[in-house]
Amino acid sequence: MPDALAHLQMAHLEALERRYADAMSALGYDGVLIFSGRPALHFGDDQHANFCSYGHFQHWTGQAGLAHSWLLVQPGQHTTCFVHAPDDFWHLPPSLPDEGWTDYLEVISGRFETPPAVNASRLAVIGDVAEATARALGAECNPPALLTALDEGRVRKSEYEIACLSEANRMALRGHQAARAAFLAGESELDIQLAYLKASRQRESDVPYGNIVGLGAHGAVLHYQHYDSEAPASRHSLLVDAGYRYRGYCADITRSWPGPDADPAFAALVTRMHDIKQQLVAALAPGVDFVALHERMHRLLAALLVESELVAGSAEAAVEGGITRAFCPHGLGHLLGVQVHDVAGRTSREGIPLPPPPEHPALRLTRELEPGMTVTIEPGLYFIPMLLGPLQASPAGSDVNWSLVERLLPHGGIRIEDNVAIATHSVRNLTMEHE
Amino acid sequence: MPDALAHLQMAHLEALERRYADAMSALGYDGVLIFSGRPALHFGDDQHANFCSYGHFQHWTGQAGLAHSWLLVQPGQHTTCFVHAPDDFWHLPPSLPDEGWTDYLEVISGRFETPPAVNASRLAVIGDVAEATARALGAECNPPALLTALDEGRVRKSEYEIACLSEANRMALRGHQAARAAFLAGESELDIQLAYLKASRQRESDVPYGNIVGLGAHGAVLHYQHYDSEAPASRHSLLVDAGYRYRGYCADITRSWPGPDADPAFAALVTRMHDIKQQLVAALAPGVDFVALHERMHRLLAALLVESELVAGSAEAAVEGGITRAFCPHGLGHLLGVQVHDVAGRTSREGIPLPPPPEHPALRLTRELEPGMTVTIEPGLYFIPMLLGPLQASPAGSDVNWSLVERLLPHGGIRIEDNVAIATHSVRNLTMEHE
Repeated sequence: MPDALAHLQMAHLEALERRYADAMSALGYDGVLIFSGRPALHFGDDQHANFCSYGHFQHWTGQAGLAHSWLLVQPGQHTTCFVHAPDDFWHLPPSLPDEGWTDYLEVISGRFETPPAVNASRLAVIGDVAEATARALGAECNPPALLTALDEGRVRKSEYEIACLSEANRMALRGHQAARAAFLAGESELDIQLAYLKASRQRESDVPYGNIVGLGAHGAVLHYQHYDSEAPASRHSLLVDAGYRYRGYCADITRSWPGPDADPAFAALVTRMHDIKQQLVAALAPGVDFVALHERMHRLLAALLVESELVAGSAEAAVEGGITRAFCPHGLGHLLGVQVHDVAGRTSREGIPLPPPPEHPALRLTRELEPGMTVTIEPGLYFIPMLLGPLQASPAGSDVNWSLVERLLPHGGIRIEDNVAIATHSVRNLTMEHE
Repeated sequence: MPDALAHLQMAHLEALERRYADAMSALGYDGVLIFSGRPALHFGDDQHANFCSYGHFQHWTGQAGLAHSWLLVQPGQHTTCFVHAPDDFWHLPPSLPDEGWTDYLEVISGRFETPPAVNASRLAVIGDVAEATARALGAECNPPALLTALDEGRVRKSEYEIACLSEANRMALRGHQAARAAFLAGESELDIQLAYLKASRQRESDVPYGNIVGLGAHGAVLHYQHYDSEAPASRHSLLVDAGYRYRGYCADITRSWPGPDADPAFAALVTRMHDIKQQLVAALAPGVDFVALHERMHRLLAALLVESELVAGSAEAAVEGGITRAFCPHGLGHLLGVQVHDVAGRTSREGIPLPPPPEHPALRLTRELEPGMTVTIEPGLYFIPMLLGPLQASPAGSDVNWSLVERLLPHGGIRIEDNVAIATHSVRNLTMEHE
């Protein structure tokens, strides 16, 4: 099969070489050696944990599963990928995909438990490498200024990267459709998860982050990490936060579905949360401050709480009294790339830390938006006993309709999450273009 | 649901306390603190690899997924399990199962990112703990003599442990049946794996080792670690090596199936490999030397190679010329417990290393069998190009029927693996009792 993305990937790699050359020249390096990493053993055991290669290695190759391999960048020379592929009848040696990078880069296959020899006057080695290994190479190990520059080089996505993110969205949505069908058929969380994997053609150890499959009240556990193998008696709701990795690039999509036993008020809230997500996506543009947009999400949530009679009084008071933060304790979204929470979301272009506001500590993206950024937009509304208890005990609690909250508790919560690429004059919703 | 195994588990824990007390008294400790471990982050990322708790922690609790938790053994005092279960709306706090150990042990739930305080005059801390953490506790960190003694304490299984291993076998066989049905329906490796997981009610990150699902020639890759998402055009064979973890205890079962496109000679070999497995299981008894039994497997394989006209000449010559080792490079089996390759398989009761014979380097169990040991018996016969090439070039190669080998290559190989518990006067095949 010819690689339809080969042309775009070539341009991506050319730009990457220029970007590395600039960063290296500014910081005085003439070589950067990137280690893909190695799987960890469970302690005291001979079985390995699952593995995901280092982000900067994936940035060049898209290979999330290639362990013990190295990539050498030296401006003016062919960028070389040293692929660890020993003769071994115990394991299948890695077979490289038919993708543009295998032509563009020089690929050397062999045994690379130890790093390849490098001829450079000032070398940096980055990745999960011991100081002693770096010393033996005469290299600096993970120098912070270089990492900051290379992280920044991942923030604005190339056309190739956006094409990969789009394809990842297409595949993930196949999983979401199957998950919804399994839910309506009355299946358990485990079976819904397996239906997701089957439809999206993935194994669990390849998904870009642990899929969240929460029935009913489990939807209120933000990073719910279990899959019950028994279906509950009542089917109030399903929340699925699940993705797909395509050539390294991650989809990260959430959908919430009311079930046959849902309260009509919950179903109405789900519909309105889709509207809020659409309003927030429509507000994306270069120059928009993401912290301000996160605060706008709180105002939209406050208006919804008032409109749906969950909260009495004004929307402004609901924001200022902290009511919306009890219903949505997470951030509006984050950068997306070869890592689901991509790097440099809280660091400016100049490498200056941009911490989140104290009242929004979970916000992972605090920058001004720029063309090329790809972000998630994921407004949420939850019924989390651990947060509602203190709210009820506080002065602001008297504005909350606790009997309606009580009816909605078994539904857990709602999150609607799309992936959006920002361009100079437009935004592209990579999720909705496939839905 | 009342715990039918509670009585057996109590007896298991009482025996464990006596065994720890003896080992500690012999080595001069009055406290042992066991750390369950913590999941590793992927390098440079905020996503975790999957986790499996430390074997010695599982030996008491059977909890493979309980991270950041501790178990304190002090003879004469209540054995205490410190369960890390912080208030957290991001994650579901661990809920302890309704099992005997939660009554027998003192269970304290709380935050245990740092170890609990211990009052002991000579304390050992074992598990994935930094030296500095041990020093801060005034403890010795993973002292080798103690670890050797505790490993040895896992070799002879209690009645409770054998009941758990039996239940793990029952569940794994449900998976194997579903895998075979999916194969006969023409499904891909990925779909066969998902069918296995669905029928055995497991997620991939909970299986005791990476399931091997190999169609055709992939059956010759001993630890085949991929799942093709496309079904091959021809269905020669399926090899599935897959287990289940029940209360920590691992099933490890392999089955091989000829497919609709199989050569009749391959189907006949599969039948005969079941016979060989049965003969080897029938030979198990206390006092049997496992190295000698492994060598007997090679004699049985040699006889089969001759009988099936894969090899001309005598069976003795096929063993002595190394022909059988080219057709089966792995060991006959290993100890089985809370780790699939359980500890102390190559160390004597007195802690003396028992390395495998040089010509059988992959053999994981080199001891004399004793009552209470649970072992796998897994004869195999493979068509591995990387091993057959050198054989063909060697003098012994002239005895091999290479045209028949050629016909069998697309079938990969055969492995039949059962789990067997050895008692004083009997052996119990934990696999076949459910098949």
